[in-house]
Amino acid sequence: MNKTEFQEISPSEFFYRNRDLAGFSNPSRALYSTIRELVENSLDACDLFSIYPKVYVRLTGLENQSKEDVKEYTLVISDNGSGIPNEKIPLALGKVFFGSKFKLKQSRGMFGMGGTMSMLYAQITTNKPITITSSVDGKTYHRYRMIIDIEKNQPTVLDYSSGDSKGWRGTRIELNLMGDYLRSASRIVEYFNKIALVTPYAEIAFLDPMDRLFVYAKGTDQMPTPPTEVLPHPLGVDVEGLRRAIRSWKGGGIRSFLIKNFHRVGPGIADKFLEYVMIDPTRDPRTLSSEEMASLTNSLQTFGKFLPPDGRCLSPLGREILLTGINKELNPEFADVAIRAPAAYGGFPFVVEVGLAYGGQIKSDKLLLFRFANRIPLLYDEGSDIAWKVLMEDIDWNHYKVPMESPLVIITHICSTKIPYKTVGKEYISDRPEIERELKNAIKEVLRGLSLYLGKKSSMENIQRKYNIYAKYLPLIAQFSTSLANRKRKPNIQLLLGEGSLDVFT
Amino acid sequence: MNKTEFQEISPSEFFYRNRDLAGFSNPSRALYSTIRELVENSLDACDLFSIYPKVYVRLTGLENQSKEDVKEYTLVISDNGSGIPNEKIPLALGKVFFGSKFKLKQSRGMFGMGGTMSMLYAQITTNKPITITSSVDGKTYHRYRMIIDIEKNQPTVLDYSSGDSKGWRGTRIELNLMGDYLRSASRIVEYFNKIALVTPYAEIAFLDPMDRLFVYAKGTDQMPTPPTEVLPHPLGVDVEGLRRAIRSWKGGGIRSFLIKNFHRVGPGIADKFLEYVMIDPTRDPRTLSSEEMASLTNSLQTFGKFLPPDGRCLSPLGREILLTGINKELNPEFADVAIRAPAAYGGFPFVVEVGLAYGGQIKSDKLLLFRFANRIPLLYDEGSDIAWKVLMEDIDWNHYKVPMESPLVIITHICSTKIPYKTVGKEYISDRPEIERELKNAIKEVLRGLSLYLGKKSSMENIQRKYNIYAKYLPLIAQFSTSLANRKRKPNIQLLLGEGSLDVFT
Repeated sequence: MNKTEFQEISPSEFFYRNRDLAGFSNPSRALYSTIRELVENSLDACDLFSIYPKVYVRLTGLENQSKEDVKEYTLVISDNGSGIPNEKIPLALGKVFFGSKFKLKQSRGMFGMGGTMSMLYAQITTNKPITITSSVDGKTYHRYRMIIDIEKNQPTVLDYSSGDSKGWRGTRIELNLMGDYLRSASRIVEYFNKIALVTPYAEIAFLDPMDRLFVYAKGTDQMPTPPTEVLPHPLGVDVEGLRRAIRSWKGGGIRSFLIKNFHRVGPGIADKFLEYVMIDPTRDPRTLSSEEMASLTNSLQTFGKFLPPDGRCLSPLGREILLTGINKELNPEFADVAIRAPAAYGGFPFVVEVGLAYGGQIKSDKLLLFRFANRIPLLYDEGSDIAWKVLMEDIDWNHYKVPMESPLVIITHICSTKIPYKTVGKEYISDRPEIERELKNAIKEVLRGLSLYLGKKSSMENIQRKYNIYAKYLPLIAQFSTSLANRKRKPNIQLLLGEGSLDVFT
Repeated sequence: MNKTEFQEISPSEFFYRNRDLAGFSNPSRALYSTIRELVENSLDACDLFSIYPKVYVRLTGLENQSKEDVKEYTLVISDNGSGIPNEKIPLALGKVFFGSKFKLKQSRGMFGMGGTMSMLYAQITTNKPITITSSVDGKTYHRYRMIIDIEKNQPTVLDYSSGDSKGWRGTRIELNLMGDYLRSASRIVEYFNKIALVTPYAEIAFLDPMDRLFVYAKGTDQMPTPPTEVLPHPLGVDVEGLRRAIRSWKGGGIRSFLIKNFHRVGPGIADKFLEYVMIDPTRDPRTLSSEEMASLTNSLQTFGKFLPPDGRCLSPLGREILLTGINKELNPEFADVAIRAPAAYGGFPFVVEVGLAYGGQIKSDKLLLFRFANRIPLLYDEGSDIAWKVLMEDIDWNHYKVPMESPLVIITHICSTKIPYKTVGKEYISDRPEIERELKNAIKEVLRGLSLYLGKKSSMENIQRKYNIYAKYLPLIAQFSTSLANRKRKPNIQLLLGEGSLDVFT
């Protein structure tokens, strides 16, 4: 009989074997994912430190290659972000589950894995080391040539050097990977167009292998306020979280423990809650038994009187930035934006922003949905996304008299400390009723705006049509009336057709 | 200015924080996922060792609980599988990325993570330890009470005991978890119905919290042949795989290296390939440079003359088992099965099996799709699955004269050493053109069968109708003819209407 054989694999090994999960399934998709993950890391390294981002991306095909669609490319990406501290550079990009994104605040990265997955994919397709250069102070740069030891989940540094960074602060990554630009070019360009739309305060340039240069200029000086990290909200706490907080508690009553460890728990709420669970406020939480911890955690869910999380840990775009982005990238006839107040699902705060653009340079003959989450575009699996579901199932389009066959773009943007993605590849958002509700309300709001605009426009057109008729026939009527009345001088019809006179016809 | 803070988290910690990724997003979904993952582990522990599975599942609500929908449940699951070796028990269920599923052969488990995720979810919702009992020899059982140290990704054993297993071999798991059975009951029952359909050689019983007992009796003695592990196919090898194989190569020419390390590479193919890449067959692969390794890997993809992987590492159900399952669980008027020859995508072999069931006990008034992969049902995200896409986009239903509003069930089963799931939660299969093609052909085959059957049935009905008319009027005609001919005795019309006479009307 067979024997069951057990083995342990490293996190790198797991994602190396299952790279489909992270969006690296084939040479076309992996090229897209690599560019996307590195651009988003660069933008995070700027935004979170209130630096206007300047991100440059260059993708070049190696010379003298076969005529196959899958080719070796060199990708260089550089930014002016905060840089990576010298001693952290190899780990930050060479170790899965080592990163800076494991915080309760909004950032583009969510799983802390994109950078390392890009390195890993590059290495396993070309067998070449990666070069990372970074400076945090604008004085010295540090440069590493390295590979990842996948079985050990550790970077192996082949080469280190440093030098004068001549004022440049930021990070530059150079890697070689096998990719299929032929099949991914349109998605990659679409990605840049869309990231420019939600990041109008950034300067982004992309030089593609066909020597096409895509430049997205900075369109506004306004930048969203960086989010601040917050304490966990009581509704998002499980027994494990409670146990950890108790373990690092230095002593003191449970009342002050609750106030100091959880978001939006003040003295008043703490008192009410402790009354609800019938625990003495002066009792040291370290004396709670296992069962008491479990029961306390469940009571956090059932109490029902905690305040919702506030929005400090979030960084929505806001009306002005989103409108600037829409007008700059889509140039529509009409645009509007709706921004909802912060809400929460399962203890995680979120904000929904929705934009709408109609007509003008938009040439589509049917509704388009542009989905964004924490300022990144989501391009794949639209049909499984909550926003698509809302558009298709929750909106009564007849009510707004807006046909879905209009040149119409709906832009949805969800900001949260934790976006409920269903895949590590950040492709689509699972349906949480709380998010669905906010999306629905925001979409209704912008559709009402469009409906009003179209109504007004159509009545203006009616007026114009009437005016044109009058303008054509009034002189004839005037002439006819003049001769009928046997007069010489025609009445001055210009008074009727002149400026402001349109009011007459409304 | 802020400083970027870096930290390392353990694999347990990663999946603890991102449990949505593995299908543990809320109390309803998590209850379903826990049952499913443990049932599948149990079935794997039997199938892979040619043991007829007996799997018993009991879910009980704790007494004296509040009236909330989310309650604490005790789940007990026991099987008669191969058991877990004593020293591996805590790690097998208490450490993420430690498991027995990281092999190139077909199994229900794919990521080696379901068992540990179930333990982890139970623990963080109830703060209670898990009890695992297992015996590999039917003589001694070993029992562990343990919890997982999430931050360290290590099991912590609280209690160990052993004793006489009295002939029982297998594994029994008992855990407490918070769940929402009210919201998940229908999915869970659907899951058991469907797993019974593809596992008719198993005996499965489920006692639910409402004291309903679902029993799925064993319906056949036939079991699929267990798969054998195979070498990696050259088309699935990347530089990392090549480097590892070279590292453990004890010496000798590259010709024998290729033959001994890769699937379906014999002397003839090896010679042709080495001629193609212009490498001396006697050269030791350990002397290959980094660039040569990369170029060799790419040549594996472009060579184009490797034989497709064979099916030994796969274990499809086969016609008889699938038909037994369909007839046993659906009891249709007509059933058929189509089984495709092994094919491959990106070096991974796969087999597509499709079943069709029509009418009889099937009461649906529209087409239903039952999706399976490596003998497990996939219940979520149907709309994103490749099989749904094939049914909706690739099949010309008019051609088969089968309306989609028929009482019709299509059963798709994909077997592979690597199912291209898009999520760790194993919900749906991404679209690979090779899989799409095989699905399409298999579905067309069963639809042709149904189309023929319905055509025959409808012409049989026509014949019956004609027969009925003749049977009604023939006596009258006979009587009329008799009196017209002035005879006494009517002709014997029974000869015309008797057995076999229907042929006359066809």
